[in-house]
Amino acid sequence: MQFGIVGLGRIGANLARLALEQGHQVVGFNEDKTATRRLARAGLERADSIADLVSRLQAPRVIFAYVPHGAPTDEVCDELAGLLETGDVAVDGGNSHWNDSERRHAIFARAGIGFLDIGTSGGLEGARHGSCFMAGGDEDAFRVVAPLLRDLAVDDEAVLHVGPPGSGHFAKLVHNAIEFGMLQAIGEGVELLTRSSYDLDLHRLFVNWSHGSVIRSWLVELMAEALRKEPGFKELSTFVEDTDEVKWVLKWGLDEDIPTPVIALSQNALMRDRDPNNVASKAIALMRHGFGGHPLHRDDEDEPRGRVGR
Amino acid sequence: MQFGIVGLGRIGANLARLALEQGHQVVGFNEDKTATRRLARAGLERADSIADLVSRLQAPRVIFAYVPHGAPTDEVCDELAGLLETGDVAVDGGNSHWNDSERRHAIFARAGIGFLDIGTSGGLEGARHGSCFMAGGDEDAFRVVAPLLRDLAVDDEAVLHVGPPGSGHFAKLVHNAIEFGMLQAIGEGVELLTRSSYDLDLHRLFVNWSHGSVIRSWLVELMAEALRKEPGFKELSTFVEDTDEVKWVLKWGLDEDIPTPVIALSQNALMRDRDPNNVASKAIALMRHGFGGHPLHRDDEDEPRGRVGR
Repeated sequence: MQFGIVGLGRIGANLARLALEQGHQVVGFNEDKTATRRLARAGLERADSIADLVSRLQAPRVIFAYVPHGAPTDEVCDELAGLLETGDVAVDGGNSHWNDSERRHAIFARAGIGFLDIGTSGGLEGARHGSCFMAGGDEDAFRVVAPLLRDLAVDDEAVLHVGPPGSGHFAKLVHNAIEFGMLQAIGEGVELLTRSSYDLDLHRLFVNWSHGSVIRSWLVELMAEALRKEPGFKELSTFVEDTDEVKWVLKWGLDEDIPTPVIALSQNALMRDRDPNNVASKAIALMRHGFGGHPLHRDDEDEPRGRVGR
Repeated sequence: MQFGIVGLGRIGANLARLALEQGHQVVGFNEDKTATRRLARAGLERADSIADLVSRLQAPRVIFAYVPHGAPTDEVCDELAGLLETGDVAVDGGNSHWNDSERRHAIFARAGIGFLDIGTSGGLEGARHGSCFMAGGDEDAFRVVAPLLRDLAVDDEAVLHVGPPGSGHFAKLVHNAIEFGMLQAIGEGVELLTRSSYDLDLHRLFVNWSHGSVIRSWLVELMAEALRKEPGFKELSTFVEDTDEVKWVLKWGLDEDIPTPVIALSQNALMRDRDPNNVASKAIALMRHGFGGHPLHRDDEDEPRGRVGR
């Protein structure tokens, strides 16, 4: 079928490429023209603006947005709400807060336009070869988009109409929260293995675990592959980016009084690892120095540096 | 090939059944004769004692032990060490502490007997249809057992000679530690989903996540299946058994100064959930009552009960 994609970043571009390969007609718009030019060679029809993109599609139009959450998604949705018509369907395929998705659904609904909040999982590889989609929104709008989703999904079970507006993104962000806990658990496992006195081949061990173990998972497979490419960790930074979505889940969990110790700690571990010069460690060292004369820095440190005294 | 199994509990019995199906000749001994009788109908040769089992095997003998860690494993290993001969191989397929496995390897080695510490992962389903094995010990002993392991494994990559004595069980227990973090993260995800105001079909969501999502894993598949069988959680106990192995990893991590916040917290969460009447909560409530007059129990509780005041 014919459809549009606004935002041809890493996920949007890979989905566009997969859709084109499967014979879909894709009209794309991206602020940065490099991505659009590259995809044009694969058959993408280029639009100069969102308005141009809308004009190039036949009704009922289907337009996916894959843009960063917050203001960029609002800008795209506001523009689409002014351009689309009754029966058209706009999709936010990114990681928006479910409350924002509920609000946007209401705006579109007032104009008779369908809106779906669709969580897209599977990463770059999934986007290129088959994702997992969890959709929130009205049944009518879902029915319009479902055949396309099934073509872009790894299989039919990977396409789910979760429930009402917002529920697709809510489900996706709980998924991301689980992911954070799994990532941290695997990361700690790598640290334990690295510190062992046995001379272990971590790559081979993670490959082994990918075959029939209880922890077999895509993340364990990714770790195996990463350990092949980066067998030593010395040169890597401890910095781990995050894009706030798990914080939204945690803030909601606090409002609702839901205990999530491991997910909260996994988020905190990332924030701590971003700051090797963190103040809390120094404060603890100062107090331990105060009551017990414990050292303020390592014996082998001339000058106090990050993480002294722990 | 012909081999023996001491201990026909859930894992040992399933492995025996799989081996018999694949044409191996299995001699089995188990304290409780019910399991042995049942397996005899599938072709298992029954032994009345460990000595009888050893006498029924031709040299070089291969004997797997699937018995609980600690004293039961020591008893089996001590008896085997007195009965086996040079060139024979004893295997501890359970979850022993890697230091115990090193000690047992030395005892067997003094008598010229091979000993392998083999971590067995994949649960009951794996044992029945193909496990994941990580072996520690000498290359010679591994070579004797490897063909059998490959027949009992889900595929050839699921059989790994990790390294020297102890390393197989060490790797397995780090695997279990990672597993604890993953379990807790998934459990917290289920709690978040359950508390949502969206009316979610958790079973369908976990099935969806099993298809192409970033968190796709055997544990997510197991959760999907469990949610199908137990859609409501009301009747279940919060009690979660554990069999100490992750505590060994955590104790070693403390000795070695290795931070494992999420794995430690996952272990702690289980211990906490075993005791709904835990004292720490009550102590906190008492202190909050002391400094701020905060309530000691819920408004709707006539009498203070477990977890009052949290």
